[in-house]
Amino acid sequence: MSDKFTLAEKDTVRVTEDALRNMVVPIFEKMGVPREDCKLAADVLITADLRGVQTHGVSNILRVYVSMYRAGQINPRPRWTILRESPAVATIDSDGGLGIIIAPKAMEIAIEKARNVGLGMVTISNSRHLSMASYHAMLPLKYDMIGMCMSSTSRKAQMIPTFGAEPRLGTNPISVAAPADKEAPFVFDGATTVVAANKLNIARRMGVKLPPGWVADANGTPIMEETDPPPPDVERLLPLGSTSEMGSHKGYGLAGVVDILGGILTGGPFGITAVPQHCSHCVAAYNIESFMDTNEFKRTMDEWLRMLKSTKPGLGHTRVLYPGLAEAECEIEYKAKGIPLHKEVVTWFHDICNELHIPCYV
Amino acid sequence: MSDKFTLAEKDTVRVTEDALRNMVVPIFEKMGVPREDCKLAADVLITADLRGVQTHGVSNILRVYVSMYRAGQINPRPRWTILRESPAVATIDSDGGLGIIIAPKAMEIAIEKARNVGLGMVTISNSRHLSMASYHAMLPLKYDMIGMCMSSTSRKAQMIPTFGAEPRLGTNPISVAAPADKEAPFVFDGATTVVAANKLNIARRMGVKLPPGWVADANGTPIMEETDPPPPDVERLLPLGSTSEMGSHKGYGLAGVVDILGGILTGGPFGITAVPQHCSHCVAAYNIESFMDTNEFKRTMDEWLRMLKSTKPGLGHTRVLYPGLAEAECEIEYKAKGIPLHKEVVTWFHDICNELHIPCYV
Repeated sequence: MSDKFTLAEKDTVRVTEDALRNMVVPIFEKMGVPREDCKLAADVLITADLRGVQTHGVSNILRVYVSMYRAGQINPRPRWTILRESPAVATIDSDGGLGIIIAPKAMEIAIEKARNVGLGMVTISNSRHLSMASYHAMLPLKYDMIGMCMSSTSRKAQMIPTFGAEPRLGTNPISVAAPADKEAPFVFDGATTVVAANKLNIARRMGVKLPPGWVADANGTPIMEETDPPPPDVERLLPLGSTSEMGSHKGYGLAGVVDILGGILTGGPFGITAVPQHCSHCVAAYNIESFMDTNEFKRTMDEWLRMLKSTKPGLGHTRVLYPGLAEAECEIEYKAKGIPLHKEVVTWFHDICNELHIPCYV
Repeated sequence: MSDKFTLAEKDTVRVTEDALRNMVVPIFEKMGVPREDCKLAADVLITADLRGVQTHGVSNILRVYVSMYRAGQINPRPRWTILRESPAVATIDSDGGLGIIIAPKAMEIAIEKARNVGLGMVTISNSRHLSMASYHAMLPLKYDMIGMCMSSTSRKAQMIPTFGAEPRLGTNPISVAAPADKEAPFVFDGATTVVAANKLNIARRMGVKLPPGWVADANGTPIMEETDPPPPDVERLLPLGSTSEMGSHKGYGLAGVVDILGGILTGGPFGITAVPQHCSHCVAAYNIESFMDTNEFKRTMDEWLRMLKSTKPGLGHTRVLYPGLAEAECEIEYKAKGIPLHKEVVTWFHDICNELHIPCYV
């Protein structure tokens, strides 16, 4: 990602993980969420910040959740139910609960099924945003399982189909995480649009132009030079691939896969047919030992990841990464030195803590 | 895809599906493949041609398989075995058999598991090329199931990782197919590189330049203008996304997912660690009825597919497609009018039929 989207040190304040938890948990409690769920919600958001995924952490998303709870768009105490179940799969109606809280519970069910029959997959309807998809995909890692998470985020259509002039699909992210032995785990996490929608919010806040290939104009034509961010709510994000000749039908097709497995297959409303804040999801766990010897798998993962990071770097680059490596390094640094928050985010914490009568630690 | 890659009518001869089967089945028999397997192999290749996927049909791939059988690189009569099995998953060693023959058999196992426990997934090691991945992903459709197929095709590394200067991964395709009611099924099928490697062969044969964003130069820098196809065996394909700013780390990451689920998780050799012609695979079937009412799923699919194809077209375009729609239309046309083969392919059939002493029908 372009360096110009990185926060400048002078605009930030470093905050410890604990200080953040001590504010985020009470904020969720004030929204009427049960204590244990608050801890889980805080863990999802702060993990995103620790891994440098500021688009999906407290900086950008928490304030959105707070307004949604206040507007009655999220159920703080959902009575989620399993609608249908068999040994390898289940379908959950999450009763309007927030995705960051329901997805880990669905993943627990998937993990238990994978333990029993080799693989478990759970689809979730009537939910809301699940933040960083890889939080959920990483949950099976500690049980030596591979994890997968998809979210049909089409609460407001944002992706322009290839050859189209109007948005029809969400940013529909896919995440897959797999454990290694000594190396940091492989953690892929990406929207099927060129960029996640929040990247545009960040560009607006920082006053920078968008690179070529991110958005389309009003005619649906991909803008292939630098351009100003469009106004909020006029988002015409391009599918991964940007143009038809460079394979945008593949980004569009992958977004379709997410709308099917993480949307239609939930049996509930989905995509742009749903209420504006609606999201639906799909999580899965794959038990490695059911396929092969787990230790052999992890050793092979190590070799493969080392091969990838030892790739000869291209001109102008110093090293080659693999998915999840930069995030793992970031987590080590931020746990030691604190998480950098933009000053504007710090001000938001001051205001919201004051308003909700809870102690502020930034 | 660019129109310049479409065969001109004057360079082609139309051949019926039956005429092709009557040549392709005996060609496989002459390679020592059992009769039933020959029919299956012919069906995979001819289905690719019928759906307009000439990169993966008789035109481009059959001659490769013939040379591989002759060089002893494919086992015509493999004794494939199930190495490990549980109710939802299995691992197969295919004993050097061709992927187009072993993948449908593995998918049968996955379908049976999905019928029993909701979902079935089978990984396959020690295999060879599986042609059009969507052939296999479409097999569960007739049982009202969703199908998935991935292939770790890294028999010769072709994809340059983001920020890298040398290839490390294969083109690693992903396919997902889902049934609808009245509409043609959703069938996504795409390499995780910008284009499949065979597209470069076609460009060479047709003497046309490559569009921007397909390949990198020797320094690993993406070539973002039109360029001549590189010589064979000097392929530096870019991951879907083309440049780092346009998300090439996502195409790279998705290729990694395929190397894990369809490679490392097979327990066998995989990727560039394997013998040159090696491929490994993963197939899965998802039983819709285990998640929700099948009829409701198919009706919703119809509505969703109609929404996609009714998207207002962008400037310069007449309509919006969904994955699998153009291929389904092509299949209807080619079944009625015959499959167009390039004259050079017809000459190849004359030569090979003559050489193998089998009747030629083109």
